[in-house]
Amino acid sequence: MKKFQKLKIFVEQNDTKGGKYFDIFIQLLILLSILSFTVESIPNLSQELRNVLDYLEIISVTIFTIEYLLRLFVADSRIRFIFSFYGMIDLLAILPFYVASGIDLRSIRIFRLFRLIRLFKLFRYSKAIKRYKNAFSLIKAELAIFLSATLFLLYVSSVGIYYFENSVQPEQFSSVFHCMWWAVATLTTIGYGDMYPITAGGKIFTSIIVIIGLGVVAVPTGLFASALTKCIQLEDKEK
Amino acid sequence: MKKFQKLKIFVEQNDTKGGKYFDIFIQLLILLSILSFTVESIPNLSQELRNVLDYLEIISVTIFTIEYLLRLFVADSRIRFIFSFYGMIDLLAILPFYVASGIDLRSIRIFRLFRLIRLFKLFRYSKAIKRYKNAFSLIKAELAIFLSATLFLLYVSSVGIYYFENSVQPEQFSSVFHCMWWAVATLTTIGYGDMYPITAGGKIFTSIIVIIGLGVVAVPTGLFASALTKCIQLEDKEK
Amino acid sequence: MKKFQKLKIFVEQNDTKGGKYFDIFIQLLILLSILSFTVESIPNLSQELRNVLDYLEIISVTIFTIEYLLRLFVADSRIRFIFSFYGMIDLLAILPFYVASGIDLRSIRIFRLFRLIRLFKLFRYSKAIKRYKNAFSLIKAELAIFLSATLFLLYVSSVGIYYFENSVQPEQFSSVFHCMWWAVATLTTIGYGDMYPITAGGKIFTSIIVIIGLGVVAVPTGLFASALTKCIQLEDKEK
Amino acid sequence: MKKFQKLKIFVEQNDTKGGKYFDIFIQLLILLSILSFTVESIPNLSQELRNVLDYLEIISVTIFTIEYLLRLFVADSRIRFIFSFYGMIDLLAILPFYVASGIDLRSIRIFRLFRLIRLFKLFRYSKAIKRYKNAFSLIKAELAIFLSATLFLLYVSSVGIYYFENSVQPEQFSSVFHCMWWAVATLTTIGYGDMYPITAGGKIFTSIIVIIGLGVVAVPTGLFASALTKCIQLEDKEK
Repeated sequence: MKKFQKLKIFVEQNDTKGGKYFDIFIQLLILLSILSFTVESIPNLSQELRNVLDYLEIISVTIFTIEYLLRLFVADSRIRFIFSFYGMIDLLAILPFYVASGIDLRSIRIFRLFRLIRLFKLFRYSKAIKRYKNAFSLIKAELAIFLSATLFLLYVSSVGIYYFENSVQPEQFSSVFHCMWWAVATLTTIGYGDMYPITAGGKIFTSIIVIIGLGVVAVPTGLFASALTKCIQLEDKEK
Repeated sequence: MKKFQKLKIFVEQNDTKGGKYFDIFIQLLILLSILSFTVESIPNLSQELRNVLDYLEIISVTIFTIEYLLRLFVADSRIRFIFSFYGMIDLLAILPFYVASGIDLRSIRIFRLFRLIRLFKLFRYSKAIKRYKNAFSLIKAELAIFLSATLFLLYVSSVGIYYFENSVQPEQFSSVFHCMWWAVATLTTIGYGDMYPITAGGKIFTSIIVIIGLGVVAVPTGLFASALTKCIQLEDKEK
Repeated sequence: MKKFQKLKIFVEQNDTKGGKYFDIFIQLLILLSILSFTVESIPNLSQELRNVLDYLEIISVTIFTIEYLLRLFVADSRIRFIFSFYGMIDLLAILPFYVASGIDLRSIRIFRLFRLIRLFKLFRYSKAIKRYKNAFSLIKAELAIFLSATLFLLYVSSVGIYYFENSVQPEQFSSVFHCMWWAVATLTTIGYGDMYPITAGGKIFTSIIVIIGLGVVAVPTGLFASALTKCIQLEDKEK
Repeated sequence: MKKFQKLKIFVEQNDTKGGKYFDIFIQLLILLSILSFTVESIPNLSQELRNVLDYLEIISVTIFTIEYLLRLFVADSRIRFIFSFYGMIDLLAILPFYVASGIDLRSIRIFRLFRLIRLFKLFRYSKAIKRYKNAFSLIKAELAIFLSATLFLLYVSSVGIYYFENSVQPEQFSSVFHCMWWAVATLTTIGYGDMYPITAGGKIFTSIIVIIGLGVVAVPTGLFASALTKCIQLEDKEK
């Protein structure tokens, strides 16, 4: 029983030296696994490198599987662990490998994307997430309103520019849906330059909507920053 | 008389179950009507889909007409309802359909745009608008000043870039009015890339005006965010 | 003597009905004069319109000259008025017309630009400028530091990108001076698209410098907004 | 001994007239040296100008060397001065010149870049840096978190856009690493226009990620501005 307790502390906590190393090892493996996933996307990789990456994948999945089984084994309630947020993440981080091995290879592209879920395993080690959750819930209502306002503005801009530019640039501004892409690129001030108004009316309309829109799009950031400052102050007071 | 009262509550309030469903139904219909308006803009739609959209339009206008008549019927003062903000919106949301049906079809494009007014019908259901009105009126004077400053800056930038670039790029920077479009795209940092200075003087001028301008254009957002925070604090105190 | 006093009030103040109309008339004339200046820049104007604009210019200069003489006449100290800020502006708004009429026409382009100075005549009527001066002087030291930091960052970015991109794109990134234009367009996030890194090193360098730079460039705006809020609060307390 | 003390004050402080002039002289020389470094990058310079710049470089290095030896001579602890921040900077500002003179000329390009280190010599004269260090350390933890969040977001955006666009634009979005450049240019809203999504999926993905991302990228600026305001208030109280 004492051995079980020791294992539990080793896996779940990082107070002991062993537990700390275990945590760091898993984190490094996550980063290595993500890096390998990224390198795989480079075209014309040599077969040798591909083999190395494949072996690396097999090794990381094996270790993640062992980690999952260990966590399952030491959990107070195994059922609850399986359906907990991190339990699901841990499972989704390894499951695609086993499923993809059993079926046709052509669909592997979509399954590969699931490996990205391993990034979320890192969240377990971050203590800051809670504070941001608090700051976020403080301004949840405001964010919802500004998101609505942003969507409203994006839609109105799209319709407006459609009516100004469609007849002159039917290829580019071919429907209100196509204009939405322009609206996003413009109101966020990205301005790729793939679509822009050329009629006088479209330009005047854009000028007005952008000057209004900049405020609407940027306000949530200001609100979040001040909510965060408030949360930090509250935490400082508690200490 | 009791029946009338019941109808009034059904139409104007959302405390009862019926009133709530009526509200949700109207909101969904508005969204459906707007979606249909958006889909119509897609080129080369099949005739079948076009027919479906036409029927949908007829149905929504019919329901919106019934809604308008109901609201008119239960209003305390019918004259006041007709000339109220939402009364006007409700009327403008259906009127174009009846007018467009009676006249030549070629002008229908402009009338179609009026259907967008239905979006404003959604505002009736938003309780947040009042708070934003308050925050807005708190900084109305400042916004007016910054709008003036923005217009002043846009104008001065346009004239400046015109004098630097017109002789080298007469096609692009052909008049101060054309340069205003450049000024908007630059000072909002959109930067489409359809117009940019190529002379050394124009580039130096742009650099100076942009570094000054960024502050002027972005300040109103900061003011609005802090006014909003103030309003929310006041509301919290009242509770 | 009483007549002189009346004229003084008429010209310098806007408490009386006459003084108010005089102010509005001058403001409208400034805007009309600026509009005419802008319209003149349109290429291929008809000779008739050109004549109209010329007459308009003669009329506005005449009225501005009368205004200047009136202000000079009613000033407490004429010498002080001539060398005051608004006295200089008023003179510079009419002087180029008289000078340009006496000399060769080819140099008129530069003189035309001086007509823009009339815009500054509008500042006389703005009561808000004082508050912004206060907010500005509150953060003068910080702005100077951030301006230095911005210049430092722009310079370092320019040198860095020059060393990464010059050998690959010698036409675009031909000297550190040319790279400064890229640095301005990038750190302000305009991103025209006329110059961008194509080497891996240049892209990584840009990514790092932009993520650092966004903060530096945007901070002064935040400081100004909070200084302005402070000034407004102080004014409210005084009332 | 008194002479030594006088020299120490002359070199290290700026209370005396001589010390002040010494400081200003060194600062001007730094700026001149940096300007000369910048001018050198212009292609097709005349041989005469090149010679002038070379002589200027020799003169500045000589003076900086004398300055370094003086500072070393008057330092309380010479060892500590050599390994201090400014001692290292002062050495790195002259060392490349001596090293480059002794070795092959082809590698001089990299050594030239070291001359930029002279800019950091200017930091010695700035009293504001301390305050910014304080503001910075106040939000160090938050900045680290937002930097992580930014990197996380950049990575997820890169992978997402890779899966949407790679099959359609294999040249542009050829690997996740290439997509990271797009992610930086998009989430900072630069939007050069060298890479942009063309698939419907890629555009929708970009829209969502940008609206989320704008907040994450802009929050640190807000935090820094408010930390700075706090630091300034604390300093004002102390006075």
